[in-house]
Amino acid sequence: VIEVPDLPWFQHASRRRRWLAGVSGGADSVALLHLLVEHGFRNVVVCHLDHGLRGAAGAADARFVRKLAESLGLPVVCGRVDVRARMRGTGESMETAARQARHGFFAESAEKHRCTRLLLAHHADDQAETVLWNLLRGSHGAKGMRDMQRMTVGGKMVLEIHRPLLGIRREALANWLKSRGIRWREDLSNAMPVAVRNRLRNEAFPLLDEITGRDARAALVRLLEQWRDQEEITRWALDKAAVTDPQGRIHLKALSVLPPALQTAALADYLARHGVPLDGGLLASARAMLRPEAAASLNLPGGARLRRTAGRLWIDA
Amino acid sequence: VIEVPDLPWFQHASRRRRWLAGVSGGADSVALLHLLVEHGFRNVVVCHLDHGLRGAAGAADARFVRKLAESLGLPVVCGRVDVRARMRGTGESMETAARQARHGFFAESAEKHRCTRLLLAHHADDQAETVLWNLLRGSHGAKGMRDMQRMTVGGKMVLEIHRPLLGIRREALANWLKSRGIRWREDLSNAMPVAVRNRLRNEAFPLLDEITGRDARAALVRLLEQWRDQEEITRWALDKAAVTDPQGRIHLKALSVLPPALQTAALADYLARHGVPLDGGLLASARAMLRPEAAASLNLPGGARLRRTAGRLWIDA
Repeated sequence: VIEVPDLPWFQHASRRRRWLAGVSGGADSVALLHLLVEHGFRNVVVCHLDHGLRGAAGAADARFVRKLAESLGLPVVCGRVDVRARMRGTGESMETAARQARHGFFAESAEKHRCTRLLLAHHADDQAETVLWNLLRGSHGAKGMRDMQRMTVGGKMVLEIHRPLLGIRREALANWLKSRGIRWREDLSNAMPVAVRNRLRNEAFPLLDEITGRDARAALVRLLEQWRDQEEITRWALDKAAVTDPQGRIHLKALSVLPPALQTAALADYLARHGVPLDGGLLASARAMLRPEAAASLNLPGGARLRRTAGRLWIDA
Repeated sequence: VIEVPDLPWFQHASRRRRWLAGVSGGADSVALLHLLVEHGFRNVVVCHLDHGLRGAAGAADARFVRKLAESLGLPVVCGRVDVRARMRGTGESMETAARQARHGFFAESAEKHRCTRLLLAHHADDQAETVLWNLLRGSHGAKGMRDMQRMTVGGKMVLEIHRPLLGIRREALANWLKSRGIRWREDLSNAMPVAVRNRLRNEAFPLLDEITGRDARAALVRLLEQWRDQEEITRWALDKAAVTDPQGRIHLKALSVLPPALQTAALADYLARHGVPLDGGLLASARAMLRPEAAASLNLPGGARLRRTAGRLWIDA
């Protein structure tokens, strides 16, 4: 029998407080549930949503999760939505519709059980896929899931999402389950190369691993950690650089002595703190305003303007 | 006819000085040569090496390059090596043997023509492949080719390598050549999915592009630029943090007030400046020495020791 994976969250999280756990019935979430029980977490509400996409298999998943929860002595909430109907109604993609439906279901479950802390079973393989997908879509550096994240649902309810398994590989979870003789439902959707994530999982990562003889997922998770370290350094550097004046405007003379990359980071930070949605093009335009001969005003999305007056750069709302 | 690609190197580099240009006869290096002539560079020596891997096709490549150089009125050096024989002799991989043979050839050409400035035709697609390959092999962050790089060959001769095409895509170069009716030799080795690089080029990148509908190469080149910006910020932060005492040792109290990522960066910087070859494991061991209760001495590769005494961390050679 393999040892229980040693994951810090299970040592430090509160056993007294109530937790919601999203359980699909796949290996990841079944492992999450067993690890919770194994570590003495008893105040856990199992939440399962049938997306209505898998017909009879979806209903069997729900029965499986219900039995599992009962066998562990945990309460269970099973919901059912029709994602395809939602897609027709809203014009959303299947992934967006499914995600929105899940968020709604979790928010309802949170309200019903007076608990806004939700556990999700994302693991290191999911993280690597997310980093690669965000990278290809144009993220600034490496962007992944947080092990703790606050999410607003429906404009007011805030869910606190925890991902205790983010540091462990899918294979390690499956091996642990196998060593205990614990069964799970194969998530059939993962075997279908339909959505991008599934194709990255089933085609791109295996190909990269085979070509290079390396572990591409491990490389992407490392990249994320290294990028987050760099972000920590940038935050320190911005603090040290102290380019804002007492009125909170950017002091251009203070900015000008910084290396170009830090100037850009300071500008991005200033705009982000003022709620300006950033993209590369806008940042380049703002960057151009640092030159005294450039235009002294730039229209920002939402109607405000970035202005340069008297050696200061500031947002004129 | 497509405009000549606008590449800054061709505006700023010296036309008076002599340049060596590595020309295989493929689209990339043929474009490089034509761009040089087009921009008034006349003091160019064409250097071509037949690796002896392609038999008659290799000899035809050499004839093609010789004719091309003659038609442009440029001197040409053609060399020939037997990479397979070198592999048998040295036990090197084909890629290493080919690279070493090229370096030797370029060094000889440099000596013969009294010119150490070498132009190579690497472009943005090559750069993306390099970044991905380094990432998968465990580079710290994104690591690519420099547009200018000094390389020591044979222990003393220093080649100054310039890559003027690093900012342009392979397709743009090929389109420009086509629009001018300029021919090139298809590099047959690229159509063979043998080496890792070729498989990344012919299988992995096309698959990633197809799955995501995005340009994976562009994403990796962006990542490299963003990582280099972060490195610039880190250098500034290390300078600001000033954690070394007048004797050049790390002042642990000054280090301790920094965020953890910057502490690690300062330590890595200190070790690198003292010529210690770094890997993640060694860095973690050095990092552990910051805790006062940890061992006060660590063996470094090469026989030196990292020691902690009197609130300082230093290398005892």
